[in-house]
Amino acid sequence: MTGGRRTRILILGGGFGGLYTAMALERLLKRDSSAEIALVNKENYLVFQPMLPEIISGSIGILDTITPIRRLCPNTNLYTRTIESIDLKRRRIRAAGSFGSQQSDLGYDHLVIALGNVTSMASQPGLCEYALPFKNLGDALTLRNHIIHVLEEADIERDADVRRTLLTFVVAGGGFSGVEAVAELNDFVRAGATGFRNINPAEIRVVLLHAGPLILPELPEGLARFAQRLLAKRGVEIRLDTRLRGATAGAALLEGGEHIGTRTLVTTVPSAPNPLVAALPCRMERGRIVVDEYLAVPEYPGVWAVGDCAWALDGTSGQPCPPTAQHAVRQARRVAENIVATLRNQPRRAFAFQALGKMGSLGHHAAVAEIFGLKLSGFLAWWLWRTIYLMKLPGLDRKIRVATDWALDLILPPDIVQLRTEKSPGIRREHFEPGEIIFRAGDRGDWLYIVTDGEVELVQHEGGEAGAPPARLGPGQVFGELALVRDQARVATARSSTSVDVIAVGRESFQTVLANFPPLRGLFEELIMMRSAPAGERLIASAESNRGGDPR
Amino acid sequence: MTGGRRTRILILGGGFGGLYTAMALERLLKRDSSAEIALVNKENYLVFQPMLPEIISGSIGILDTITPIRRLCPNTNLYTRTIESIDLKRRRIRAAGSFGSQQSDLGYDHLVIALGNVTSMASQPGLCEYALPFKNLGDALTLRNHIIHVLEEADIERDADVRRTLLTFVVAGGGFSGVEAVAELNDFVRAGATGFRNINPAEIRVVLLHAGPLILPELPEGLARFAQRLLAKRGVEIRLDTRLRGATAGAALLEGGEHIGTRTLVTTVPSAPNPLVAALPCRMERGRIVVDEYLAVPEYPGVWAVGDCAWALDGTSGQPCPPTAQHAVRQARRVAENIVATLRNQPRRAFAFQALGKMGSLGHHAAVAEIFGLKLSGFLAWWLWRTIYLMKLPGLDRKIRVATDWALDLILPPDIVQLRTEKSPGIRREHFEPGEIIFRAGDRGDWLYIVTDGEVELVQHEGGEAGAPPARLGPGQVFGELALVRDQARVATARSSTSVDVIAVGRESFQTVLANFPPLRGLFEELIMMRSAPAGERLIASAESNRGGDPR
Repeated sequence: MTGGRRTRILILGGGFGGLYTAMALERLLKRDSSAEIALVNKENYLVFQPMLPEIISGSIGILDTITPIRRLCPNTNLYTRTIESIDLKRRRIRAAGSFGSQQSDLGYDHLVIALGNVTSMASQPGLCEYALPFKNLGDALTLRNHIIHVLEEADIERDADVRRTLLTFVVAGGGFSGVEAVAELNDFVRAGATGFRNINPAEIRVVLLHAGPLILPELPEGLARFAQRLLAKRGVEIRLDTRLRGATAGAALLEGGEHIGTRTLVTTVPSAPNPLVAALPCRMERGRIVVDEYLAVPEYPGVWAVGDCAWALDGTSGQPCPPTAQHAVRQARRVAENIVATLRNQPRRAFAFQALGKMGSLGHHAAVAEIFGLKLSGFLAWWLWRTIYLMKLPGLDRKIRVATDWALDLILPPDIVQLRTEKSPGIRREHFEPGEIIFRAGDRGDWLYIVTDGEVELVQHEGGEAGAPPARLGPGQVFGELALVRDQARVATARSSTSVDVIAVGRESFQTVLANFPPLRGLFEELIMMRSAPAGERLIASAESNRGGDPR
Repeated sequence: MTGGRRTRILILGGGFGGLYTAMALERLLKRDSSAEIALVNKENYLVFQPMLPEIISGSIGILDTITPIRRLCPNTNLYTRTIESIDLKRRRIRAAGSFGSQQSDLGYDHLVIALGNVTSMASQPGLCEYALPFKNLGDALTLRNHIIHVLEEADIERDADVRRTLLTFVVAGGGFSGVEAVAELNDFVRAGATGFRNINPAEIRVVLLHAGPLILPELPEGLARFAQRLLAKRGVEIRLDTRLRGATAGAALLEGGEHIGTRTLVTTVPSAPNPLVAALPCRMERGRIVVDEYLAVPEYPGVWAVGDCAWALDGTSGQPCPPTAQHAVRQARRVAENIVATLRNQPRRAFAFQALGKMGSLGHHAAVAEIFGLKLSGFLAWWLWRTIYLMKLPGLDRKIRVATDWALDLILPPDIVQLRTEKSPGIRREHFEPGEIIFRAGDRGDWLYIVTDGEVELVQHEGGEAGAPPARLGPGQVFGELALVRDQARVATARSSTSVDVIAVGRESFQTVLANFPPLRGLFEELIMMRSAPAGERLIASAESNRGGDPR
């Protein structure tokens, strides 16, 4: 563009849309040194989504479904960073810092937005806190470890109710990703459980929740019915016309009031626009950026969008493109051509593509597929599924590794090794439904709680029924501090009198800060002193202790 | 023992010592239902330590060096829990809770302590905070991800000094584990770096620190010299007679005052007794439990100890057994025999075993070995190394998987995928040497700091040199709060005037609590108000704000 400087093409996002744009640009600009390509992505690899469910069961090695971006685009500058903001007016994006606190500011002449969408769980109570998302590699690994963890616990648990809760697995969402996830989860749990000496296979319950009357609404009815029958035969309980309302630590809450006791709730349903995309000053349609037939954002010349975050109309049918990898890859190639055409003052071309087909794996040698109008199910569809995805998996080394994994998987038993690298978080949010016990008198206290919403009742059991009246706490008030400050067992039982949200601060984090920051210790000692005063005084003191607060 | 109840044999620890004890007991008690075996371990798998270094380079799949304990001991009750305390007098151990807060109390008739030792870094400043240990699977994965992360950053870093620091890798300790780790790290970094377009291989520096005059002191001098030459040829800089004194975020500190700028410091040196073992009321020798010739703890009948945590004398030589897997496995078999002999009132047998040999891999098709007095080096030793360890790897499925990995590794390029599942911690400790900048005015503030040791200087730059005199903060005082409470850039520069230890609280954790717990907000608003008062007032206020504190 300007004089001797090289044109900077910046791609945001390393999913199918972003990565294939970079690959196509590298090909088109091979002997052209007037432009440089950069890509910003949180990870340095592409997750091959269709194979993600197989990570759960370990039938594919953890690193084998993902391809390093650098290997696919050797001539692109990769910034492995989180994007903090996009400024279309000043043509800059800001990426988070890494070592130290410096951010990177990146300018561009052409910007390709390929940020996909995210799993948002903020709309239903308790989902953020307890539901496991299933979208990226980290999610798949976390889920795998979690499943092994509950099996471990179930193996040594003697209380039948607790064991039943541990052995119940709930997946919400009967679309492709929900069905593939529940199929692999079911296979893995049932095969893995045979390695545990005290788990009775009959106690395992795997439930799929689906809001509609038939799972896999993307497929023709016959195939969907086939999938339903097959999953049911393998032990998956399918609950149709059923919606998830929320979650607590020990249950999935359904609309209509039913609770399913479980420690494993996977949700694949709520897909929300990426917050970075939602904040853009462009025209949006259902949370996606409206682009013209060339995939350009009309209001901002030089800005383009592809993939799940773009609202693009197919040139042939005039219909909006569905959010699939097939479409993202074709859009990526077209946007790369159009950017190069713009640089060379050549005419741009409109986007048009019809999906080739749809496939879904049902685990354990079965799948359903509709390809070029042809309907397939069972083993043949599964064979086709594997062959097509193996062909599509980018990189020869990956193809070899996955093919080897699949071969070994036919002869070797599943892995039940639990990989833990995470440290326990110091601060977490929790949600309780009305009437739940948060902790009991006599328990060891591991958390301090701050109420953010609802009302909590603290009941002291000082022998006999004539104890002190319960203290009631509202937003901005703290409880459970005594056990952590004084390092003793809980002296009261805490119960939610309404639906309650709290922030829980872990023992170790809290004590580290408390021991080293005297004013905080002072604050809590004061609080404890006031609470141990007689009941009448206590209520006043408790309100006072929340200086500037809003104790309801 | 007592009437009709089954004898409870409880094993603590799932390393070679504990696991092989369980396996031997299962074999010896095959048709005997009068005893039951239980094992408590933090993980549900055995890490095959000799292959751990290969995890770094990814030449072995992550899950392939580890064997699920349940598969090796199908008739043992496995408790995947952290042990909290051992009570030898009341014959009970307490394990941490999992879901909920209940702990498990386990009683025993026979107790086998096989808790190994731990990496302790508390003795040198900054090691806890910045050095990476290399002992278990999580460590290997963390190190692998960290190496890829610094390569990512080096690839986009323009400041030559910062890049040099990122591309310097330091391993402390020239024993077997240090040498094997540095060999694999060196191979991986140099092969992996070729995938990054902006990294100049000549800038990569891999340093091995060793306290003695020759690495691998366990081996004959000739083999050790061979290893030194080979590592040097491959680009490892070996610093002999050099001790690590400590670390900061950006440097390894050597005794004598030298600093090596690095973001990657791996330490394999300080091996300390497991705190659970150290707390036992038994006779100890160099932190290990003294056992008699039958591997029993004399003071407590029914209590036994094996492996690295036991101080056992070899029956033939009278020498203490070295802490190796070979010895742990032989001790495990003998202790199992002796427990069964005790149950059946048969005579017990003394322990005696001479090591068969020693081997160390040097990465990339080379190793050194001394077996039955024979000395081997180079390719032949490496071949032997692989063959022997493949034979020793427990479980046929693992053998097949590792053999396949090794075969693929010969033809495929190394992986540079960075797997992140951890969330960033909300609270961490940091260490600064005198005169380091903690943050600069104008930086974005991501952390709040509490001084735990030393003195920090806060300098305000209000244009010109005649700014306010620096504020000096000591233990128990907080700084950096303004940027987090008011969400603005740093207004002052913080520098360590002495050696300083701080606790850093992350922006997100802090703000979550601040927004929901009004008294804390009050506390900090007060603090900020006092600090923004004129200098004279400020010093008094600052001291006051630490009610009950000890501001030096």
